[in-house]
Amino acid sequence: MANIRKQPVLRMSDIYAPTLKEDPSDADIESAKLLVRAGMIRKEAAGLYTFLPLGMRVISKIETIVREEMDSHGGQEILMPFVQPAELWHRSGRWDVYGPELLRVTDRHDNEFCLGPTHEEIVTDLVNNELRSYKDLPKNLYQIQVKFRDERRPRFALMRGREFIMKDAYSFDADEAGLDASYARMREAYINMFDRMGFDYRVVVADSGQIGGNASEEYMVLADAGEAEIASCTCGYAADTEAAQATPHPVAYAADALTKLETPGVHTIEELAAFLGTTENACVKALSCKAADGTLWVLFVPGDYEVNEVAVEHLLGEFTPLSDAEMKDAGLVKGSMGPVGLPEGVKIAADESLRSIERWLVGANVDGFHFAGAKQGEDFTVDAWEHLCMVKEGDACPKCGKPLSIARGIEAGQIFKLGTKYSEAMGVTFMDEDGVEKPFVMGCYGVGVSRCMAAAVEQSHDENGIVWPVGIAPAHVCVIPLSGKPDEVTEAAAKIADELACAGWEVVLDDRDERAGVKFADADLIGWPVQVVVGKRGLKEGSVEVKPRATGEKQSVAIDGVLEAVEAALNV
Amino acid sequence: MANIRKQPVLRMSDIYAPTLKEDPSDADIESAKLLVRAGMIRKEAAGLYTFLPLGMRVISKIETIVREEMDSHGGQEILMPFVQPAELWHRSGRWDVYGPELLRVTDRHDNEFCLGPTHEEIVTDLVNNELRSYKDLPKNLYQIQVKFRDERRPRFALMRGREFIMKDAYSFDADEAGLDASYARMREAYINMFDRMGFDYRVVVADSGQIGGNASEEYMVLADAGEAEIASCTCGYAADTEAAQATPHPVAYAADALTKLETPGVHTIEELAAFLGTTENACVKALSCKAADGTLWVLFVPGDYEVNEVAVEHLLGEFTPLSDAEMKDAGLVKGSMGPVGLPEGVKIAADESLRSIERWLVGANVDGFHFAGAKQGEDFTVDAWEHLCMVKEGDACPKCGKPLSIARGIEAGQIFKLGTKYSEAMGVTFMDEDGVEKPFVMGCYGVGVSRCMAAAVEQSHDENGIVWPVGIAPAHVCVIPLSGKPDEVTEAAAKIADELACAGWEVVLDDRDERAGVKFADADLIGWPVQVVVGKRGLKEGSVEVKPRATGEKQSVAIDGVLEAVEAALNV
Repeated sequence: MANIRKQPVLRMSDIYAPTLKEDPSDADIESAKLLVRAGMIRKEAAGLYTFLPLGMRVISKIETIVREEMDSHGGQEILMPFVQPAELWHRSGRWDVYGPELLRVTDRHDNEFCLGPTHEEIVTDLVNNELRSYKDLPKNLYQIQVKFRDERRPRFALMRGREFIMKDAYSFDADEAGLDASYARMREAYINMFDRMGFDYRVVVADSGQIGGNASEEYMVLADAGEAEIASCTCGYAADTEAAQATPHPVAYAADALTKLETPGVHTIEELAAFLGTTENACVKALSCKAADGTLWVLFVPGDYEVNEVAVEHLLGEFTPLSDAEMKDAGLVKGSMGPVGLPEGVKIAADESLRSIERWLVGANVDGFHFAGAKQGEDFTVDAWEHLCMVKEGDACPKCGKPLSIARGIEAGQIFKLGTKYSEAMGVTFMDEDGVEKPFVMGCYGVGVSRCMAAAVEQSHDENGIVWPVGIAPAHVCVIPLSGKPDEVTEAAAKIADELACAGWEVVLDDRDERAGVKFADADLIGWPVQVVVGKRGLKEGSVEVKPRATGEKQSVAIDGVLEAVEAALNV
Repeated sequence: MANIRKQPVLRMSDIYAPTLKEDPSDADIESAKLLVRAGMIRKEAAGLYTFLPLGMRVISKIETIVREEMDSHGGQEILMPFVQPAELWHRSGRWDVYGPELLRVTDRHDNEFCLGPTHEEIVTDLVNNELRSYKDLPKNLYQIQVKFRDERRPRFALMRGREFIMKDAYSFDADEAGLDASYARMREAYINMFDRMGFDYRVVVADSGQIGGNASEEYMVLADAGEAEIASCTCGYAADTEAAQATPHPVAYAADALTKLETPGVHTIEELAAFLGTTENACVKALSCKAADGTLWVLFVPGDYEVNEVAVEHLLGEFTPLSDAEMKDAGLVKGSMGPVGLPEGVKIAADESLRSIERWLVGANVDGFHFAGAKQGEDFTVDAWEHLCMVKEGDACPKCGKPLSIARGIEAGQIFKLGTKYSEAMGVTFMDEDGVEKPFVMGCYGVGVSRCMAAAVEQSHDENGIVWPVGIAPAHVCVIPLSGKPDEVTEAAAKIADELACAGWEVVLDDRDERAGVKFADADLIGWPVQVVVGKRGLKEGSVEVKPRATGEKQSVAIDGVLEAVEAALNV
């Protein structure tokens, strides 16, 4: 992994990396705190950040990885204008559709432009009349560029800024089969990229109900701060929890006939199970809502599951849960709803898993009472059977059956089959083999470059600071002499730094005249993957300490074994 | 010069490089024509261009050279926002001063911003309260970024666009001596950069009269399309012609006394010298103008020189040459002005060189007449002696005395001592060694990255296309098999391409099924430094042709000598 060429040793006294002891007052997420404190980014205004030298080194590494993988998977780098003529957006129809996130600008001659949030229009116009024949296809053009989206409420620093660095790629093919091949190549490139960045991530098939087909995949970096929840399996399956399917196992609560039970003060499933000394999956949970057409529905799922709102939307269209007042008006009893004796016109939907439960333990539509033994087809009838449960930890993977894990994730990349949406809207065609003019079949492929930097910090940090993955760390090793003034310690440290640099590693020498505590704190905060600590006492015995940042476990190493120990710590 | 690593062979059939046979109708300069025709750039709107893959390769090479030289001369790369808050420009006082080139933008919350044309404000604000002590200095922060200037009339494609790529650097020092050292380092970096880009260029000391001291140097790439005229010497001296000093050698026209000569129809120096059978430098030329204070002046220079308007401005302040009507009103005679018998109140300035000419051959202020023998101090008096001549080819170098050359140049870079202009205006200070808060002493250093690409083409092209310097060529060698279908020719060409790539060269294989004429024309147009032509006839004798683009001289080379011949052509 080391470069062949000798790297220059960086000196902490030279580097512009103003570290801070205090958290910035407006930091609303760990990466915002740590990147600012580690002297890697600075806020200029809401959603506008400057990358300082160490931050820029991380960005450059991410860009290099992205560039190399794009180039080796058929991508060709271009650079399109950031300021885009409105005329193109009129042609695609997006000028009027795109919201206020599209920042519009008028130039000195009163011509309208916008700051590019994405480049489908420009790239489609670019190939117009220049990619003329099916023989010129496929082509994949990409750029790495600053984008602008005028977010209403920019927040989470690099996670949801207004100006951000993105790699966007666009593929042009003659037909769907061609697009499939281009898409598959990008998929491979993306997996390589995120592997090389050292991420623990999941490839999530986007909710197919909304987009259609396997037309989109998201690359989600697992982190608590993630905006999405993902169900995934060791077999490789992963899906947004709203798109994944739960596998509930409800059980029957023993009752031979419809029996009204007095359940004073019981309003939740937890209370019901406890009151009756049974398990939650023996109870049936109810939720009321109003469909787009005004019909009232009560939805039933096993007591140990939550309702998946996206699944309900697929069934009913846009719906709204009923408020307490609406429930009262409709004659529904909060905390005791059930399928038996519902008001006229209220419909019943139930999760598929409840088909197997003949008699339900469920609300009696009277406060303080529940029914046991409510029988399907006899005491009540279900109007719609659907998968309505939100997937949860331990549900069976739909691919292999093993238990699923649930985690939050940050979207770091997305690949997408556009089809002919833009080429048709803008009338951009090529001559196919059969002599017919056809619109290009397009794909688009994005990576949030600056977002990857934040995602890495969200995924990999501790109470002392950042823990950079080796592949995108601002440098590999920090050599820390426990002395600032020139002496045998600084001399030995410089020599070790030089030796590591000669082996191709990127080395920082903390040559500042600072206390050991300050140097240690900064090294932990900045998050160099490996620290080499050179002290007077160790030197006498011919040894130094090597500390991998991730484990924090210091190891005493003989001076002539430093390179080996460092490379072991870097997991070469 | 070759990289150690094997390069992948690029295939012309893959590369998105739509070459054009016809010049684009709106191209107003050679580089605009050739870069578009060679499939390297495309115009999106006035002053907005897309860089296609081959153009992007050139840009990347320029960026790499700039980055490496900045990094090895104390620069640290950062990235500041493109969209800048108006508030900072108010603090520096430039919001109201900067003209309509500053494109102003209002965001969704009605906050004002501008698209960055330069970054002095942001970078000065950035270091505020973070570079606190003289111990933190010097620092040099740079970025490579797209800038925007809303030019009234964008033209010459990449030479004067609205959106363009620039490297801008800013140095921070404690005092003038520190700035001098930072400036000297940048000077060295700039010379290395432009050497590595393969430019024939001059380092021009900017007009010291206007800026003060040696506070600025411009790096001018010599090319006919340049906007500036430069006088330079082999000793290294170079200056804008308006700042350089001429060395006229006027001679006396023999006459013992003031003699009025009848010169019918003579109105120019050329006509006067021919009429009298003498040389132009024996005549004295006159020009009339009005100074800022309203005084009328007649300026005299030797007949073989032109007046340097900047020199006149230094003498008189803002001035305007008189129109024919104004001359008539003032009693001045066009084509026959002289120092003897001028109207009352008209003042006389003369070039220093004329001091040595006691008696002048000059206009008589009467149409059709001139004076010979007009004597200084007797027939007329000079009010101001100054250097008023425009330098010309062959004038003596002020440094070494050798003859100067005159050429046009394109400004590719500039280094500039800012001093405390921005740090004072914005109140940004550090604590100096003496315990006193002082404003930073700053320098700024720019390179027009995309402009360098155009300058290279302006300097290096012929009627067939671009002739890229090796250091920034999109690739080093193009291997051209004179066959498109797979056969022994394409096989041999692929083998040669692979061999060259293994040696670390960037190789393009023109594997297209096109006529030889098309391949040759495209290779010349795109301007790869070396072409290797593989044909059936040559192969039979075990040879191929190697053609350096610059000379066009084809050379037959044995197949096992191709690498050597190519490297010789690349001047390794």
